Amino acid sequence: MSDQTVKYLLPEDRMPKSWYNIAADLPPMAPVLHPATGQPVGPSDLEPLFPREVILQEVSTEREIEIPEPVRDIYRQWRPAPLFRARRLEKALGTPARIYYKYEGVSPSGSHKPNSAVAQAFYNKEAGVKRLTTETGAGQWGCSLAFAGSLFGLEVNIYMVKVSYQQKPYRRALMETYGARCVASPSVETSAGRAVLEKDPDSRGSLGIAISEAVEMAVQREDTKYALGSVLNHVCLHQTIIGQEAMAQMEMAGDEPDVVIGCAGGGSNFAGIAFPYLGRNLREGTKTRLLAVEPAACPTLTRGRFAYDYGDLAHLTPLSKMYTLGADFMPPGLHAGGLRYHGMSPQVSQARHLGLIEARSYQQLECFEAAVTFARAEGIVPAPESSHAVRAAIDEALRCKAEGKAEVILFNLSGHGHFDMQAYTDFFGGKLEDLTYEDSLLADSLARLPQVSEPA
Amino acid sequence: MSDQTVKYLLPEDRMPKSWYNIAADLPPMAPVLHPATGQPVGPSDLEPLFPREVILQEVSTEREIEIPEPVRDIYRQWRPAPLFRARRLEKALGTPARIYYKYEGVSPSGSHKPNSAVAQAFYNKEAGVKRLTTETGAGQWGCSLAFAGSLFGLEVNIYMVKVSYQQKPYRRALMETYGARCVASPSVETSAGRAVLEKDPDSRGSLGIAISEAVEMAVQREDTKYALGSVLNHVCLHQTIIGQEAMAQMEMAGDEPDVVIGCAGGGSNFAGIAFPYLGRNLREGTKTRLLAVEPAACPTLTRGRFAYDYGDLAHLTPLSKMYTLGADFMPPGLHAGGLRYHGMSPQVSQARHLGLIEARSYQQLECFEAAVTFARAEGIVPAPESSHAVRAAIDEALRCKAEGKAEVILFNLSGHGHFDMQAYTDFFGGKLEDLTYEDSLLADSLARLPQVSEPA
Repeated sequence: MSDQTVKYLLPEDRMPKSWYNIAADLPPMAPVLHPATGQPVGPSDLEPLFPREVILQEVSTEREIEIPEPVRDIYRQWRPAPLFRARRLEKALGTPARIYYKYEGVSPSGSHKPNSAVAQAFYNKEAGVKRLTTETGAGQWGCSLAFAGSLFGLEVNIYMVKVSYQQKPYRRALMETYGARCVASPSVETSAGRAVLEKDPDSRGSLGIAISEAVEMAVQREDTKYALGSVLNHVCLHQTIIGQEAMAQMEMAGDEPDVVIGCAGGGSNFAGIAFPYLGRNLREGTKTRLLAVEPAACPTLTRGRFAYDYGDLAHLTPLSKMYTLGADFMPPGLHAGGLRYHGMSPQVSQARHLGLIEARSYQQLECFEAAVTFARAEGIVPAPESSHAVRAAIDEALRCKAEGKAEVILFNLSGHGHFDMQAYTDFFGGKLEDLTYEDSLLADSLARLPQVSEPA
Repeated sequence: MSDQTVKYLLPEDRMPKSWYNIAADLPPMAPVLHPATGQPVGPSDLEPLFPREVILQEVSTEREIEIPEPVRDIYRQWRPAPLFRARRLEKALGTPARIYYKYEGVSPSGSHKPNSAVAQAFYNKEAGVKRLTTETGAGQWGCSLAFAGSLFGLEVNIYMVKVSYQQKPYRRALMETYGARCVASPSVETSAGRAVLEKDPDSRGSLGIAISEAVEMAVQREDTKYALGSVLNHVCLHQTIIGQEAMAQMEMAGDEPDVVIGCAGGGSNFAGIAFPYLGRNLREGTKTRLLAVEPAACPTLTRGRFAYDYGDLAHLTPLSKMYTLGADFMPPGLHAGGLRYHGMSPQVSQARHLGLIEARSYQQLECFEAAVTFARAEGIVPAPESSHAVRAAIDEALRCKAEGKAEVILFNLSGHGHFDMQAYTDFFGGKLEDLTYEDSLLADSLARLPQVSEPA
């Protein structure tokens, strides 16, 4: 075998025909509660926000949910996505470990996000919706929904977290190239945005604020719905095509991962690579390690509380039981803006709470160091979000080296960093710093978590 | 068949095992002349610049030249590159034409350039070279040689045309991420650069100047060679893998192109997609139209002269017979910096001179309009260079619509525009203008072409 990076490509006819739904195998979860009544929400409560098919997916416990043929037709432009054996990286690290990465940067918008954006745009189009609103952090989700909207002739309005809007003007340019409208959040367009600006005119924004704005705009208009890029069950569902493909490709490679790694912001990327393996662990008793990696500056899984909380700052969303830093926790403005969310997918949270997955956090400098090592070996420049998974994969490989173990490491390289080169420029220029928050801020934010009496 | 974009992927074992050399089929060309003596150069004259294998390829007339296995191993990370049928674009245009595009943006650096960069780095490494110098316009070539250098442990020094260095800081960041050194040209590091700066301290630079600087640095050091990203025969040779793959993929699609389109700066991208078809035209009498597209602001093939000229401003390179605007012609600072070269591949020039290919020029605004239409339909944002081919493909498709003809159009989408989003931002902001030069400047530059008595 050559000492070069090896690509494993599935034939198109082996692209999964259904998404895998972890709800079929995960122990039952605490119900989602209505923000006004505190009672469990029913599907009809979600109708102002989402089309019917999406709501059904959100609450489904069917193990397999068919991917509609028109969605598969679009996926095929870049899927099945490649899986690589990182032989050049292994050599650079001098590790006996075998490192594989699934690469989702091959999508038109450069990340895994279109897996859900295309599906959500399709279901909305089918339901006669004319316009979608959404939030975006670093812009990966906004670009992907803009792309999906352009395919289905849907108008797309995007509230982009202000710090990223300023740090990443080229993500905004990409959204506009796809024909979407992108606004810095907090904005004066919504009462949620105006309320934040009144208290803090210099607010850098957060995903929690941007979600409030997008939800507010969606519920006001009959022809408009809301689309969320992570956290929710249906988004995790759509991303499982990643892990399902990876499983088939690892089989092609004749290898079986000891550990599967993904970065986690809202959780859907991690869910995408990990849930098919988690389901197998639960059904068949396999013991594949599953590792979620998050920023130390926004450590939801590692320092948050497993509790009921709102998904947004203005408390417009339902309450979910999840790991949370508190809906008004304001994380520092790190470059991995896609990981800058106070909450975590309830399904990922449940898995963590039950000890079914591991979690780890890293500072941003050590992530960029890992990203540069990776880029020089493998040629692909990782997005700052993905660099967290790269860091963890490299650390696992170095542990294997120290222990003399030839373990198999699989991670999801969720996107490329072409629109994040300012961060790399800052890194090389010595202008990038590790970011922290005051412990008291987190304690205060957790102390303000809503008091909810959990239904029996 | 779906109305979505369709992908045609060659299996890896059908990746070409050899490059196609047009010199085997093209009528003999005028000899390359030594800049000092005016006599035809022999292989040994090129030895200060290039390793032996590269020189042999430059002068070879063998039809097939084997791709070394280590180069193929690296190619396999992203090759065979996909070919797409642009059904969504066809629908958006309402054309009966069938539009196909070969997509080279899947390479790690995002363009077709690694096809030659990897090969050149390999041959230099084999020859014991420690360091490569090169020039880059928009940065696609610089990034690609930086990538290739990182794979083979070669130091890479890049002279980047100053206007692009300023317009495209993120290309520079990418080169640095790969570990290369990037300097704005004209620089004070070379006598060629200092001479330009003395006359014009505000010089925006040109590929002709940057080549002089890179060549000067290479000839000064024993362990250093020079690598050129286009123009020369061996570079065109390495790019023919594009057209060879496309031919096999068009066969998979059950279609045959009536016209093959590529943008042309130095000519190697156009050669890559077109030469395999040109060779077939020459050998088998097929009549596939071959269309080279260039910027109206640097119209080498459409307004230049077919004459002997230097490849660089300082007259350090040999003299080649080619279409040229004159080595001291200073094109305006258009965003498609990769097409901003005064000369043209002698092989492409010869084909044009003999009427074997067509050429057309476009202004930059109409190219960006076409690029946005393409991005909204196909999801991929073209590089400004590639947008010239997109414009021509769309115009051919609209001609087919007007004429009611279902012709087959194939173009090479040579790279993505992720590092060129400032140009898109300027375009949407109304800040982008068509660029022209004074006719008298071109006339003067052509009047200064060297007086060469062509060998019989």
